[in-house]
Amino acid sequence: MSSTKTPDRTTPPYILVDPGSLPARIGTGYPAPYAEACANRIKRALGNAVGLKSFGVNLTELPPGTWSSQRHWHSRQDEFVYVLEGELVLVTDDGEFTLKRGMAAGFPAGKPNGHHLINRSPRPAVYLEIGDRPAGDQGFYSEADLAAHPNESKNTFTHRDGQPY
Amino acid sequence: MSSTKTPDRTTPPYILVDPGSLPARIGTGYPAPYAEACANRIKRALGNAVGLKSFGVNLTELPPGTWSSQRHWHSRQDEFVYVLEGELVLVTDDGEFTLKRGMAAGFPAGKPNGHHLINRSPRPAVYLEIGDRPAGDQGFYSEADLAAHPNESKNTFTHRDGQPY
Repeated sequence: MSSTKTPDRTTPPYILVDPGSLPARIGTGYPAPYAEACANRIKRALGNAVGLKSFGVNLTELPPGTWSSQRHWHSRQDEFVYVLEGELVLVTDDGEFTLKRGMAAGFPAGKPNGHHLINRSPRPAVYLEIGDRPAGDQGFYSEADLAAHPNESKNTFTHRDGQPY
Repeated sequence: MSSTKTPDRTTPPYILVDPGSLPARIGTGYPAPYAEACANRIKRALGNAVGLKSFGVNLTELPPGTWSSQRHWHSRQDEFVYVLEGELVLVTDDGEFTLKRGMAAGFPAGKPNGHHLINRSPRPAVYLEIGDRPAGDQGFYSEADLAAHPNESKNTFTHRDGQPY
C-alpha cells in the first residue's frame, strides 16, 4: 500500500477531488414559459461520474433568482437535499421555509406535496440533491401546466392534457 | 401560502433544521476485535428521519483516530460519500488518498475493491454517506475475518467460515 497522498492526476476514478469541475448541465428541458425560472440552474452529476447506477447525486448551484425546478412531486422517487452554501427558500403546500447551510429536507415518494427551491438571496446557493431511479416514476407539477413523460434517461414534456408544446 | 420564515417549532417533519441534533448511533455491531477502531463513530440517519425508504443518507462523524468501518465492498449496494468537515484518509486496494472538505467518492456495487475512511487528523471529520437498499446485498471484508449476514434492518456477523463469534 502506498503512503498517504493528496489526490492528484493518478487519483482513481471513483474519487472526485473537485466536484465543481465536472461538466455542467445548465437549465432544464421544460418548454416555455416554464424553462425561464430555471434557465441558470447548474447541475453536476457526481454519482454518475463515479459509476453509480441506483441513485443520482447532483451538486446543484442556483444563482440568485433561480428556481431548482417547477414545483412538483414524484410518484416513486425518493428525493433528498442538503444545503452546502447560501440560502434557499423551500416552497411546499405548507408554505415557505428558508433553508440555510447544513439544513436538509427529504421528499418521500408518493406524497402529493409539491416542492421546489428558490434562491431569493443575492448570493449563489449550492446543495446536494439525491434521488433514486425507480421504474415507472412520474413527476406531477403543482402549478405548471406540465406532464412529464420519462423517455430513456430524461423527461419530455406536454401540457397536462397530453397536447404537445 | 405563508410568508417566508426560518424553520421553527412548526417546521414540517420533512425539513431537518439541525441534522446534528438527531439521535446518534455510536459504534458498530462488529464483534471484538473489529468493533474497537469504529467504537467512536457517530451516525445520524437523516434520510430515515424524513421518511425516505429507497436509500439512506447518514451524517457521520469520525473523531480523531476513528474508522468509518472495517474495509469492505458491497455486492449490490451503491455507496457515496461527500466530505463536509475535516480530513479523511480513504483506503482502498489502490492505496491511500486524503479526502478534504468538498471532495467526494463513490463505490459502485459489485466492484471487489474494499474501502473505508480513517480520520488520522487531530480534528473531527464529518461526511454525508448515501447508500441504497437492494435486496440480497452482501458486504465482503478485505482484511477482517467477518461475514455479514443481513438480518432485518441490520447485519449480524460471523467468522468468514460461518463460525459464530
